[in-house]
Amino acid sequence: MTVTASANALRIGVAGLGTVGCGVLRLMARHGDVLAQRTGRPIVVTGICARDRRKDRGLDLHRFQWFDDPVELARSDAIDVFVELIGGENGPARDAVEAALEAGKHVVTANKALLAHHGAALAARAEEKGVALNFEAAVAGGIPIVKVMRESLAGNDITRVYGILNGTSNYILSRMQQEGRPFAEVLADAQARGYAEADPAFDIGGFDAAHKLSILTSLAFGTQVSFDTVYVEGIERITPADIEAADELGYRIKLLGVALNTDSGIEQRVHPAMVAKHTALAQVDGVTNCVAIDADQAGSMMLIGRGAGAEPTASSVVSDLADIARGNRVAPFLIPARNLKPYTRAQMRAHEGGYYIRLSVYDRPGAFAAIASRMAEQGISLESIVQRRKGGARDAVHGDGQGAPTPVVMITHRTMEDSMRKALEAIEKDGHVDAPPQMIRIERL
Amino acid sequence: MTVTASANALRIGVAGLGTVGCGVLRLMARHGDVLAQRTGRPIVVTGICARDRRKDRGLDLHRFQWFDDPVELARSDAIDVFVELIGGENGPARDAVEAALEAGKHVVTANKALLAHHGAALAARAEEKGVALNFEAAVAGGIPIVKVMRESLAGNDITRVYGILNGTSNYILSRMQQEGRPFAEVLADAQARGYAEADPAFDIGGFDAAHKLSILTSLAFGTQVSFDTVYVEGIERITPADIEAADELGYRIKLLGVALNTDSGIEQRVHPAMVAKHTALAQVDGVTNCVAIDADQAGSMMLIGRGAGAEPTASSVVSDLADIARGNRVAPFLIPARNLKPYTRAQMRAHEGGYYIRLSVYDRPGAFAAIASRMAEQGISLESIVQRRKGGARDAVHGDGQGAPTPVVMITHRTMEDSMRKALEAIEKDGHVDAPPQMIRIERL
Repeated sequence: MTVTASANALRIGVAGLGTVGCGVLRLMARHGDVLAQRTGRPIVVTGICARDRRKDRGLDLHRFQWFDDPVELARSDAIDVFVELIGGENGPARDAVEAALEAGKHVVTANKALLAHHGAALAARAEEKGVALNFEAAVAGGIPIVKVMRESLAGNDITRVYGILNGTSNYILSRMQQEGRPFAEVLADAQARGYAEADPAFDIGGFDAAHKLSILTSLAFGTQVSFDTVYVEGIERITPADIEAADELGYRIKLLGVALNTDSGIEQRVHPAMVAKHTALAQVDGVTNCVAIDADQAGSMMLIGRGAGAEPTASSVVSDLADIARGNRVAPFLIPARNLKPYTRAQMRAHEGGYYIRLSVYDRPGAFAAIASRMAEQGISLESIVQRRKGGARDAVHGDGQGAPTPVVMITHRTMEDSMRKALEAIEKDGHVDAPPQMIRIERL
Repeated sequence: MTVTASANALRIGVAGLGTVGCGVLRLMARHGDVLAQRTGRPIVVTGICARDRRKDRGLDLHRFQWFDDPVELARSDAIDVFVELIGGENGPARDAVEAALEAGKHVVTANKALLAHHGAALAARAEEKGVALNFEAAVAGGIPIVKVMRESLAGNDITRVYGILNGTSNYILSRMQQEGRPFAEVLADAQARGYAEADPAFDIGGFDAAHKLSILTSLAFGTQVSFDTVYVEGIERITPADIEAADELGYRIKLLGVALNTDSGIEQRVHPAMVAKHTALAQVDGVTNCVAIDADQAGSMMLIGRGAGAEPTASSVVSDLADIARGNRVAPFLIPARNLKPYTRAQMRAHEGGYYIRLSVYDRPGAFAAIASRMAEQGISLESIVQRRKGGARDAVHGDGQGAPTPVVMITHRTMEDSMRKALEAIEKDGHVDAPPQMIRIERL
């Protein structure tokens, strides 16, 4: 049996019945009536598609027309909107989305990889066909950041967009902070609890955040999506010593994605960052996400919410459907795709900011003087220096001692990354440190 | 000379050229071109109106058609959208908005008082006429909370909406917190700096927040706007002793607006509240606003941003104009006005939660035992008790002493407000306290 929709109903095909796909079906079953009242017309799922028809999903799927092939569903006359929840930058997801656009169907997708790699081209195709390409669920789950950037900030010039875009990494950093435990131990525990994947590289390496950031960058600056140029550093090298030193100095360490419009181009970077402890962003703990925007009219704005999970992501998918139902049409990347500017990359070596540096210094005469002079050679001035004895006590810096390595933590004033890296390379070469320096960028909020 | 708009341009009339009105004109002058690209059609201010034509506003107004009477502008054939930035719940603002709707013009307004008092009636009129009534700027300035509630959360059932809705009060509480100074002193300083009005009652008394809250309540629960039923308490009675005790107990004091759907009706309340110190909301300091929502699908969400000022408010007005330009039409209160349910008020005495209580107790035998038994009579159990000596040292509670009043601070477990008030009335009547008890509700985030 298939659903017969009333004349003015918006007919939906859902491809991919994993966590989010089932979340969408459950949401529509629960709130379909009120949604019709709110949008002025029924929104009805008519067709569905997944790899395994027999899998028990705890849902009655008999009312929907089943498709084995997502491309077939995408082209079907039974639907007006194709909802792509398959995932992956190529393969069936891409094939089906392209087929849907070709057939003049609106598309709603939660697929950040697809958009990060093919966003501009898909947007152009959707505009040619006069259909919607909506992707609220692709960035930061339940947080309505795409709508806010495409619609609420239409009268603004955005200078920076940044945030905590990966829940797994934030969960691990939060627990390291709260429990003082090392990265590997917390990661293993997170994996055991299902908060981290068996292969966690995509999350903790920063690549998931980079996918999302590349989409936000395009929305913020009217540029073509450019995932390959995102500078990416993960959280693997963060130690309890860093977290403890950060706390003493008034900071928290967060994996941030930051896109910044500079004179030399656009910086897109994902890396662990020091953020001031007494800020709302620093309090965003666990799997929660947040996105902040600096805009010339609205000022600084931040949205905090659930970045993943069946219900929050389904909420965003349904918001996109409601927009299509009401006829609210915005260009996928806010301005017509043909007007999106090519992305001009600002080199990370040209990045300017403060830095946290942690060195493990052999405690012998002249070591610290040599380090200080390497900083001075590069014109780097220091805001604070802390030498930490093994016992954890905090001492003034001095050059005498037993020769055993002692942690030295420094906060620099604003400097250029190129200078910072040259100074650290020279310090390492001088042989006064027994391990590669730790360098964490400070992000001013 | 007047502006001639192209055929498909959206023509705007702006009534009220104060801070926000001038902000809108400046924004349109600066970003009008990019706005046209983003919305697909020009948005052009054609008519303007204010009380004093000769006043120097630092803007060239010669390109606009001038109207002395806002009602005349509202009805003018020269406009498609009437932007009401006059203010006030009745008088010229209301007359002009009604005239505009009558004439079939879309209306954009930043007027929270108007909506708090006449929201449901105006919405019904706008719907009858098939025009938009948009008011993003009426709640929390530059924060896009109206759009998020009307559109992004269309597939959600909302259980609570709350937040810091008045910048002046939050600025005063933040400075009391940071500087340990009394309310009156900080208020006087805020007035001198222009952060508080000469007559501050509207802000610090909680009425401004209550206006905004009543609008959020309607959007959250599909009820008719009901400002008169909001329970309102201001921040006048908050002392440095409360702020210090809160800090020791892990809380910050914030003026919150809270709307909550309960079994016995809807609680709408504005009052100082204790919120856990290590939360994003507790870090929202100064004139910044925030709005948080608990929704069944999206989960908990929070938006933080600038709650007032020319540019943020203008940003929201222009967002509303962009929606009208693109043809994005939503019912003013999300569902058709005729379907808005009558508001059912939950009595404050039925409110349940934890309480912070500060008593000034005569330090004599039996005083504390009497207080404890009054609490026990009402079934109130205590989570913590702190007796504070004059020197600020924190001591265990004991009953002996010199008879001079000593501050006693208590945190209760969850209880009903009726019980709490009865206990405090009895304690006051017993004569062991030398001043009325301080009672501050604890809000769980």
